[in-house]
This record gives sequence, C-alpha cells and structure tokens, in this order.
Amino acid sequence: MVRDKTHQETYEKLCDTAREAAMLDRIQCLLEWDERTKMPPAGGAYRADQAAYMAGLTHQKKTAPEIGAWLGALADCPLAADPNSDTGTVIRCLQRDYNKRARLPQSLVEELTRMSVLGQQRWAEARRDNDFTGFQPLLQKMVDLKRQEAAALGYETTPYDPLLDDYEPGASTAEVARVLKELREALVPLVAAIADSPHGVDASIVTRNFPIEAQESFGTEAAAAIGFDFAAGRLDVTDHPFCTGLGPGDVRITTRYDEHAFSDAFFGILHEAGHGIYDQGLPRADYGLPTGEDVSLGIHESQSRLWENQVGRSLAFWEYFFSAAQRAFPSALGSVQLPEFYSAINDVRPSLIRVEADEVTYNLHILIRFELELALIEDHLQVADLPAAWNEKYQHYLGIAPPSDAEGVLQDVHWSAGLFGYFPTYALGNLYAAQFFAQAQQDLGGLEEPFRRGQFGPLREWLRENIHAQGRRYTPAELVQRITGNPLSHEPLMAHLTSKYGEIYRL
Amino acid sequence: MVRDKTHQETYEKLCDTAREAAMLDRIQCLLEWDERTKMPPAGGAYRADQAAYMAGLTHQKKTAPEIGAWLGALADCPLAADPNSDTGTVIRCLQRDYNKRARLPQSLVEELTRMSVLGQQRWAEARRDNDFTGFQPLLQKMVDLKRQEAAALGYETTPYDPLLDDYEPGASTAEVARVLKELREALVPLVAAIADSPHGVDASIVTRNFPIEAQESFGTEAAAAIGFDFAAGRLDVTDHPFCTGLGPGDVRITTRYDEHAFSDAFFGILHEAGHGIYDQGLPRADYGLPTGEDVSLGIHESQSRLWENQVGRSLAFWEYFFSAAQRAFPSALGSVQLPEFYSAINDVRPSLIRVEADEVTYNLHILIRFELELALIEDHLQVADLPAAWNEKYQHYLGIAPPSDAEGVLQDVHWSAGLFGYFPTYALGNLYAAQFFAQAQQDLGGLEEPFRRGQFGPLREWLRENIHAQGRRYTPAELVQRITGNPLSHEPLMAHLTSKYGEIYRL
Repeated sequence: MVRDKTHQETYEKLCDTAREAAMLDRIQCLLEWDERTKMPPAGGAYRADQAAYMAGLTHQKKTAPEIGAWLGALADCPLAADPNSDTGTVIRCLQRDYNKRARLPQSLVEELTRMSVLGQQRWAEARRDNDFTGFQPLLQKMVDLKRQEAAALGYETTPYDPLLDDYEPGASTAEVARVLKELREALVPLVAAIADSPHGVDASIVTRNFPIEAQESFGTEAAAAIGFDFAAGRLDVTDHPFCTGLGPGDVRITTRYDEHAFSDAFFGILHEAGHGIYDQGLPRADYGLPTGEDVSLGIHESQSRLWENQVGRSLAFWEYFFSAAQRAFPSALGSVQLPEFYSAINDVRPSLIRVEADEVTYNLHILIRFELELALIEDHLQVADLPAAWNEKYQHYLGIAPPSDAEGVLQDVHWSAGLFGYFPTYALGNLYAAQFFAQAQQDLGGLEEPFRRGQFGPLREWLRENIHAQGRRYTPAELVQRITGNPLSHEPLMAHLTSKYGEIYRL
Repeated sequence: MVRDKTHQETYEKLCDTAREAAMLDRIQCLLEWDERTKMPPAGGAYRADQAAYMAGLTHQKKTAPEIGAWLGALADCPLAADPNSDTGTVIRCLQRDYNKRARLPQSLVEELTRMSVLGQQRWAEARRDNDFTGFQPLLQKMVDLKRQEAAALGYETTPYDPLLDDYEPGASTAEVARVLKELREALVPLVAAIADSPHGVDASIVTRNFPIEAQESFGTEAAAAIGFDFAAGRLDVTDHPFCTGLGPGDVRITTRYDEHAFSDAFFGILHEAGHGIYDQGLPRADYGLPTGEDVSLGIHESQSRLWENQVGRSLAFWEYFFSAAQRAFPSALGSVQLPEFYSAINDVRPSLIRVEADEVTYNLHILIRFELELALIEDHLQVADLPAAWNEKYQHYLGIAPPSDAEGVLQDVHWSAGLFGYFPTYALGNLYAAQFFAQAQQDLGGLEEPFRRGQFGPLREWLRENIHAQGRRYTPAELVQRITGNPLSHEPLMAHLTSKYGEIYRL
C-alpha cells in the first residue's frame, strides 16, 4: 500500500510536469501561429530569439533529470503493467519521448528553433522573389543541423530513420519506401488510363470568379457543418495553410485565397478543419498528457485527408452542398449543373503544386519529396544540386517541368522549417484515410445517404470514438490493425481511386 | 583593471538576465494581446493557466538570488557611479525593480495573473449582461489580493502607495491627491462657464453614419501620418482599446468602432498610436534593459494624450486632414464646414463614459475612480457598496446619473484586471502632455504651421529625442523638470483648455 501510494505520487508529479511542458509547448505554438498570421514584418528577428529561448526552456523542462528518475521508479510498477491503460500509456509514451529528447543538446534545440523561424521568413521572401540561390545557404545550414540532430539521436540504418520517427513514431524508412513503391506501381497505370481517357473534364468552371469574402463565409459554413467548432477555434489567412492546437478549447486553422481557384481554399479549409476536428476531439481532461495527444502526423493527416477527399470531394457531399454553393457564387455557378461541377473538382491532371494537386497524382508529389530529402539527409545530394534534381523528378514522375523554382523546389515551407521526415506522413495519411473510411462505411452501413442529408455527425462520432478519444494509447500500426483488422495497405486507397475515377473518366 | 573586468562581466550577466526576463514578459504580452483580440471563447480557462504559469516563470527569473548578488557586487562600482549614465541607469532601475519584486511571493504573483485573465473575461460578460452582482465576488477577491500585495510590498502611509508606485515610480498618493485637487478647483469653474455659454456646439455631425471600413482606413492613414510605423505594428479590434509592445519591431494597438460615433474610434486610434510611437521610439539596441524601457505609465499616457488632444483635436490638424475626411465620409461630412466639424469634435458635455469624454471633463472621471479605488484599497468602502458610491460621485462631480451599471461602474476593464493605482496616471498624463507640448511649441517656434501642412515629423522627433530616447534614465519628476525647467503643474493644461475652449465657447 505504501509502495502504491508512492508510485501514485510519483506518477502525479510526472503528469504535472508533462502538463507544464505542454503549456510551454502551446505557447511556442502561439508564437508561431502569430508569426505566420499576424506579426508585422519588423517583428521577425526578435520573435526568432523568443522562440529559440522558449524552445530551450521547454527542452529543459522535458529533459530534467528528475523525470528520468521518476520514469525509472515507475518502470516496473503496477501503473505501467498494462501498456494500453491510461497510466500505462502515459508512462510508456513519456519514457519514449524522454529517451529520445534527452539525447539532444539544448544548444542544438535552440539553434534549430531559431533557424526554423528565420528559415520560414527567408523562405517566404525567396519564394516571392524566385531566388533559390539566396535561400541556399540557409537551407544548407538546416540540412547540416538536421544531420547533427540525427547523429545525436542515433540510428542503425539511415540518418533519416530518427527524423521520420519524430513524426511517425515507430515507422522506418525502409517500410515507408516499400509502401510508397507499392502505391506508385498501382498509381502510375491509373494516371496513364485517366490521361488516355477520351472523356476529359472541364475544370475551367472552378477557375471562374469566386469573390474571396464569399469563399471565406462558404468555407466557414462547410467547416462548421462537418463539425469544426468555431467557439473553440478560428480561421485565418496564411501563405502556407496549417492547423495548430493552442489549448483544449483553442484550435486554429488557416488557408489562402485565390479569386480564380475555388478548390484551393475550399478543400484547404476542409482539410485543415479535419485536422482541427481531431484536435478538438482529443480527451480534454487529459490535455498535455499522452492520453490526450494525437498519435502521429500520419494519423493526423488521415483525418484531414478523409474530410477533404473521401467526404469533401464525394458526390453525396455536393448533393447536399451544391445549392448553397450556387447561392454563394451565383455568377460562377448559377448556371452550372452538379455533374459538371463534381467532375471539375475531381479533375485529374499532373500539376506543379502539391497542395493544389488532385487526389490521384498527389502521392507522386510526396514521392518526389521523400526521395529528395532522403538523399539530402544521407548526403547523396547536395543542396546546390537540389533544383535540378527537383525538376528532373517532376519530369520523370509527372511529365512536367516547373518553369521557375518558385513553382518548383521553393513551393513548400517544410525544409526551411527543418521538417525533414515530415512529407511521407502525407502519403501515409492518404492510405490511413482510405482504410479508415472503408471501415467506417462498413460499420455505419453506408455514408452516402447521411451525407446527402448533410448529416456528418455519425462519421465524426465514429472517428471520435475509434481514433480521437484514444490519444496515444496505440501506435499508428496498432491503431490501424485494431480498427480495420488489417495492417496498413495501399489497397483501400487504390480501390477508392479506381472506382471513383473509373466512373468519372469512364475507364 | 582586474576588478573592472569583473564588474563588466557581472554587469553583462545582469543585462543578459534582464533581456531574457523581458522576452518572457513580452510573451505574456502576446498571450494577453491574443486573448483580447483573437482567442476563441472556449480558450479562456487554459489561457489563464498559461498566463499564470508564465508569470511565475518570469517572477522566478526576475527574483533569482544571483541577481541580488550581482546587484550587490555592482552597487558601489564605477559603472554605477553616475546614476544617469547607461550603466548607472541599468543598475539603479534593476535594483529598484528587484527590491520591490523580491518581496512578492510567487504564489501571489501567479494567483494575481490567473485572476486578472479570468477577471477580464468575467468583466466582459458582466458588462454585456449589466450584472454587477455576478461580478462582485471576483472583484472582492481581486481587492483582497491587491491588499495582500500592498502588505507584502510594505508602506508607510497607505496601502495605495506601493500599488501606485508600480505604475508611476516615485509618485505618492498624497502628491497625486494634491495635484488632482488643484486641477479640479481650476476645472470646475471652466466646466460651469462652458455649460452656461449661450454658444452651444452641434455635436450631432459626428454621430451621423460613418461606415466602419472607412473609419478603419482613415484612422490607419492618420496614425501612419503622425508616425506610427505599420511595418513594425498593427491595429486590431477589442472591447477595451490598448497598446502593447511585443518586441523592438512589433507594437500593437487596438480600437473599437461604432458606426455612429466618429470620435470614439478616430481619437482612440490617435491615442493608441501615440502610445505606440513612444514604444517604437525607445532605443532598440537596449530592448529589455531599463535604458530601452518607458519611464512610467504617466509619461506613456502623456504621449497618447498629446497626439490625441494637443494634436488631433487642434484646428491646425484638421486644416490638413478635413478634406481627406470629407472624401472618406462623403455622406456624413460632404456638406459640413471645417469650423462646425472642429466644434463638434470639441463638444464639452458631462458624460457617462470615460473613454468617450471630452478633454475638459475627462479628468473628473479620473478623480472619481481615484477616490473610489483608494477607498477600496484602504478598506473604507466595500465592494458591495461600490455601484451606489459610483453613481453618487457621478451625480456630485458631473451632475449625471448612470442609468445602468454597464454604463457606470462596469465600464472599465481595469479593476477586473487588478489594475489599482493605474487610473491616476491618466490624469498625470494629461498634465505632462500639456506641459511637454507647450515646451515643444516654444522650442520649435510654433507647431500650427507644420500641422497645417501635414508635417508631424518635427514634433515627433522632439518627443523622440527628449523623451523616447531617454528610456528610464530619469524619473518622471526629473524628466519634466529637465525638459520644461519646471516641476509638474496643472497650469499648462489649464492654460491650454482655457484658451482653446474660451474661443470655441466664446467665454
């Protein structure tokens, strides 16, 4: 009894410290959200210093020696006996995080944070000015720092492994490479068949004039309809859309508008709202503890992709929403028929910009980034040679050549922010999304009917119960296996794409 | 030489710590700015916890024992010999701040911060619902906490002294009471003479329809014209307007718009821009050190009041800006003549809401708050009796009775945020502003001519050089004496008001 009481007390100290560390983490998220949405330009340098300082404080907090001692004392106690119980999950995940983080020197953590903030500022300028050369030294520095980080974390096979593990715990480079290869082999014939189809799609409908104010209110309405809670969140404008959780009642999403590109902002909002619904669905009482945290970026992305694609690009969704869209955009859509519109938002076409890519070719964009960043981190590719390598791969996988670096290698913020190992989680998210959605359809007995009536609650609750409410109780691999009865596979995604686009393109 | 080197090293450690503490301070300012301008409603509780936690961290940082030791080691060294040199200013001010702050228990600092955030949230609801009774327990708790704070800080005469000293270093309750009494004795006959004047003013012009979007762009244009740098700042909307400095290149102001009240937002923006110009004018290289900080709230308020009143409500200012105002608000001002408009924005009339009060009666609003908060802190007035006491004083000093608590005792955010001792600095600001402006006019050989041509640079540079660039080198009293050759007096303000309103009301 005395021993249990001591364990319980130790456990509570561990939880209090984790909650405090989460408060610091969330403050860093606010610093970043503000930097990307509101901060005036001259505030950048100081903000980078503040972010670096806070990263150092957070690192200290998370790697304090007493945490190691507490975890050691709890390792074999009854609280840790069931690794999927509440207490077992907390102890197991905090131990994992501590082991990894304690290997990083504080100076490296601070430097990575400072360079990440400065990098994103510099990237925005470089993209605007189409200036890779000016950006190159900073990117080189970032690659060097990430290689240092990988060395500090340690690895057996490739320095990419520990970086990937930051975003997709437990995943290996070899496994990701295998899955992406299988996906590619199945995708390429589908892309070719679509390109060869005589039944082309007129996508020009969605490039008509869509006034930005109407885009904002229509997007907000749709996000609220699928379940993003605006009393506990907000929507702002940024260069590169994102979602960030700032607290148990404060989840923020962003988008960017183009008057002549309906799909960009609309599906972008659904995408980020999908992330936001996951964050809003995590157990509030456990905020700051592993039982109240998301599993991985791949699982997070599955939630955004599922709402964006499986739901938002479905015919049933638009059977409900199309008349509202016609009211919101009378001049662009007033005389359009639903089937034309549905085809237009599902136009498949090799394109330059990942975030604007269709559901089918999207994964080829990821493949390109994965291969390039793996080569950079493994030192098989030099930063100076990156634009040429980028353009070559676009030619090879998608058959198109970027006319400028701004539309090529400079299009994504990730590398400037030090996010190496992050891109593959986008493709994993697509695979998880299709696999989860197929299971939800089976469990709920079909989802088209409810969608046609604007009922998104049943799906949302299914996701909440099966995924959101679980926190980090299971690894991504365990979660997929538990929910669907199968390991991760490219087949559900290919089944979805083949059936849907077979119909649209009459293959 | 060795000794000097040691002093220099100690001094640099002291400065590094002060700069780090300032980073934490500024993060708290961001938490608050965001809470008041952007945060979704459900984010409030967690934000209060975060702010309290950060206040605790900042307090620890600022009261670390080594700071006391460093200050002790530097006390009699050559770096501290001249109290107004750079190093002397830093050592003197940090010693003063440390002595005061080290008396406060961290638990009290955290509790005050948490209550301040929750208090402001609760206040906004209470004002909206006209519900003083629901707000009363929270206000009672806040008064109790502030009395605890005063007791911890220590005082000789009244517990109000150490609270006042937080905002106006070196000022005493007795001195403030004396100045406000002299001001009141001179003001009351002027207010009466204006009320008795047969030459009334038609203020209805400025309550016509002023579209909010046009108010925002016209206000932004005016703020930029007087020198607020929008590349290093921004303007947002809040319930209670404020200005906050988040970094050397990031100063943010807020306002609130009412379609039928031109003056509220416009002069509010000029006011906050005046604060912002001060913050933007502080020495950037010394950011986070006393040589890079503002002197006091009274001096800060002098900068906002000067731009709002001495400049913004002057005839010369509108000789330049009126045609732009007519273009911005064609339906409201198209057929109005400048003299009518000038009179309308200078209408003197006892009114209920402080922030909307005219230049003449404004100080009576402050007097009421000063007397009431002094009585609360000295325990001569109970929170339960506050609304009645408030209404009685409005009857007595201004001859009007608030029809509701929302327009009475609940109108200001300050007490809900624990800002007791803050209100008098508004009146001090008015006095300083008039005294500085009279001196600037003398030094620069008249300012009306430049204003008529839209030239605000000479005045701004005079303020920058004489006030902004000085940081905390001098106390408020020293600064006034140095710049104007006289101690603080109510006479320059009365001279300004008597001359200006004598003309408008033909007294």
